[in-house]
Amino acid sequence: MISRVCIFKKIPIRPARTYSKITNKTSNSSADISHEVSNKQKLFLTDPVSPGSIFFLPNGTKILNKLIQFMKLQQQFKYGFKEVVTPLIYRKSLWEQSGHWENYKEDMFRVEGHDTSKEEYGLKPMNCPGHCTVFKRFDRSYNELPLRLSDFSPLHRNEASGALSGLTRVRKFHQDDGHIFCTPDQVESEISKCLKLVDMCYTKVFPLSQESANGAYTLELSTRPDHFIGDIKVWNYAETVLKNILNNFGKPWELNEADGAFYGPKIDIKIADQTGKYHQVATIQLDFQLPERFDLKYKDSDNTYKRPIMIHRAVFGSVERFMAILIDSNKGKWPFWLNPRQAMIIPVNTKRQGQVDTCRNLIVKLRGQGNEDSSNPIPLNSFHFNVDLDERPEPVGYRIKDALMKNYSYLIIIGDKEVETGRYAIRTKEERRLEHLTDNEIFEKFCELEKQYK
Amino acid sequence: MISRVCIFKKIPIRPARTYSKITNKTSNSSADISHEVSNKQKLFLTDPVSPGSIFFLPNGTKILNKLIQFMKLQQQFKYGFKEVVTPLIYRKSLWEQSGHWENYKEDMFRVEGHDTSKEEYGLKPMNCPGHCTVFKRFDRSYNELPLRLSDFSPLHRNEASGALSGLTRVRKFHQDDGHIFCTPDQVESEISKCLKLVDMCYTKVFPLSQESANGAYTLELSTRPDHFIGDIKVWNYAETVLKNILNNFGKPWELNEADGAFYGPKIDIKIADQTGKYHQVATIQLDFQLPERFDLKYKDSDNTYKRPIMIHRAVFGSVERFMAILIDSNKGKWPFWLNPRQAMIIPVNTKRQGQVDTCRNLIVKLRGQGNEDSSNPIPLNSFHFNVDLDERPEPVGYRIKDALMKNYSYLIIIGDKEVETGRYAIRTKEERRLEHLTDNEIFEKFCELEKQYK
Repeated sequence: MISRVCIFKKIPIRPARTYSKITNKTSNSSADISHEVSNKQKLFLTDPVSPGSIFFLPNGTKILNKLIQFMKLQQQFKYGFKEVVTPLIYRKSLWEQSGHWENYKEDMFRVEGHDTSKEEYGLKPMNCPGHCTVFKRFDRSYNELPLRLSDFSPLHRNEASGALSGLTRVRKFHQDDGHIFCTPDQVESEISKCLKLVDMCYTKVFPLSQESANGAYTLELSTRPDHFIGDIKVWNYAETVLKNILNNFGKPWELNEADGAFYGPKIDIKIADQTGKYHQVATIQLDFQLPERFDLKYKDSDNTYKRPIMIHRAVFGSVERFMAILIDSNKGKWPFWLNPRQAMIIPVNTKRQGQVDTCRNLIVKLRGQGNEDSSNPIPLNSFHFNVDLDERPEPVGYRIKDALMKNYSYLIIIGDKEVETGRYAIRTKEERRLEHLTDNEIFEKFCELEKQYK
Repeated sequence: MISRVCIFKKIPIRPARTYSKITNKTSNSSADISHEVSNKQKLFLTDPVSPGSIFFLPNGTKILNKLIQFMKLQQQFKYGFKEVVTPLIYRKSLWEQSGHWENYKEDMFRVEGHDTSKEEYGLKPMNCPGHCTVFKRFDRSYNELPLRLSDFSPLHRNEASGALSGLTRVRKFHQDDGHIFCTPDQVESEISKCLKLVDMCYTKVFPLSQESANGAYTLELSTRPDHFIGDIKVWNYAETVLKNILNNFGKPWELNEADGAFYGPKIDIKIADQTGKYHQVATIQLDFQLPERFDLKYKDSDNTYKRPIMIHRAVFGSVERFMAILIDSNKGKWPFWLNPRQAMIIPVNTKRQGQVDTCRNLIVKLRGQGNEDSSNPIPLNSFHFNVDLDERPEPVGYRIKDALMKNYSYLIIIGDKEVETGRYAIRTKEERRLEHLTDNEIFEKFCELEKQYK
């Protein structure tokens, strides 16, 4: 059976309906943990003025921006994606052409002006029709393919209000979305690259789950459903290609017979949470349908026009939901590079002006703050760390304990000896052992941690 | 007379109505130039499927992202702003509370679900009510003020379809928006800081116009209109404060008597285009009204609750419109840091494999490309330059001319001698003189240019 919600793009931002069997319970507990961590760390809000849309507070915005920045860098400079920024509202006619108006209408928000024109728009739930518009606008040649477009636009889906919860069941979300337009010959290598990016994320940068028998994540291939469109030969070819890719990839994978989307087969990637339950994150989907509907074509080397194949893929999936999974995994103990609380500076004696002054100089250095009176701009690509200063007139032991409770990655403790030598006592939240480093050494240490996504 | 479009926030994204006298004609010509440059450089598209919303193509997205990145860095690390990401659709009740539903309704897009709830939303034309929601959610103390929130959310305003044109008259746009919640005592220093950021932008980083008698930009103070709300004493105080700030700032300014918004006086900043016509970019507006409507308060040091003052400010204004002004000014000759075409690498003889290989290695180096098979991620805050390679089998002179025509900032020409010595011939688009630099030297040179916004 074809799910109503899965027209063209089954990227799972909606566990409530799409994955209710797998993630329903866990999602609820994830939502609870997200809210608990968010309340402590002031990450985000929800409010009845916009049900299902997240208000990211400054700390949550820092995490969201870092995740997106990470993905942009990998996609652009390792895997050849080109970022586009596309409109959020499109005329009904586009959604009719794509098939969403017929099949997805109830999950979309309708938009109209208050003027007399009464033009009707849909607020986009997916980027694919917009990317098809971009592809179609130029006379495309075979040597432009594969064309890999990425987009981080906010998307809206009208989830039932009763199902809304935390970061996992939302109406507005950001996807690390991408569409690859390619020739049939390129499908194999493009999907292999997608899998490499997935593998890097979930084994190297975000090793979320205890390694299970299957490794850090599972791979599932979903094949032709009973109800399908297109040529059965193309399906067979595509499924063979995907099986070959999965076999060559060298990790175990499972077959979900007849569970593909009606427009093409797909590979879903799931990761386990702390309780061992699996959540879908990444997806890679072959689509023979949208190129037809939009009459997309490219001029091949033989000067004839041919139909490209479209691959829909996401690695995080919904960035909001991925953030919820991270929180479920780390319980608010962020790795340094993602931590909105990277270091707390603590003067031992807040009555000693020398200590306080040294702390204040150090915070300017580590934050990379510019002088507001200077006309020199802060340079591009500079490092700026989330460092705070606790100069409350409380005992030093109390302030250290408080910073540990708040999950600061590093504590920097400055007494008279540190002021004198210019070497500051620094410790991690896990280890009491103190290192003594200069301001430059601390800055460099922090740069290295960020560069390595530690 | 109060303009209908100026409820609460007169940030001028809509030259068609708000500035028709000043910018109408110039905007049209800017739009023409934008389109011409965009067509040559593939910066953006518009399409009837979403009238007034820009499709930023990869090259245009690079410029948009760099402009936003620049502003985020200055706001956060020089001027203490905290970025938030807020919802795009809000229930009608919020817009009723803010007054937009009554006064701005016809310029807003209405949103509703297709489900039975028929809940009615407004697609946000401004961020202020969302920021008031964030402010109000916490029990605020005087020592949290000034609280400076920034937001780069896409905004939508339902411009008449006949007025839509290029980047200047759009329905969807991004603003470098910010709201400062502060005490009356803080207004002066906060506005001074806003002016310093404006001054840095328009004299140092974007010196767009020939210096006129007034300098690179003009300052205008608009005072209490005939129709106003609030206490006349507060108005008089605020106008005196703004006059003092402008006098202390040391640049000439003009008085627009009785031209303020009905909720408070404001300072508008305009810059001249190449023909000497002025366009509004930045604005700084005092608002006594929204804090009332949202009943915002903070606990002062005397333990009583007080009403904060709200400052609306933007430096670029609409980033789309600012990009149009940049294009009008540079005619597609972007400074290096913004150029989507930073360097073209040209092998002298494309049949010499050594030359071609050297060029290909250099492009990987300058683009900062990672190996797609490696599991090492591209590090945060790394430099990646927009470099292309022209290995067409055309005469070298033809390819040099073509790269110059396409406004590449640098040309790197590699013949046998360059392959042998490892020092590559590099020239700017303006000067024929060749320098010979190693790959590391070129990379460092480019990093320096970007860091300095050259």
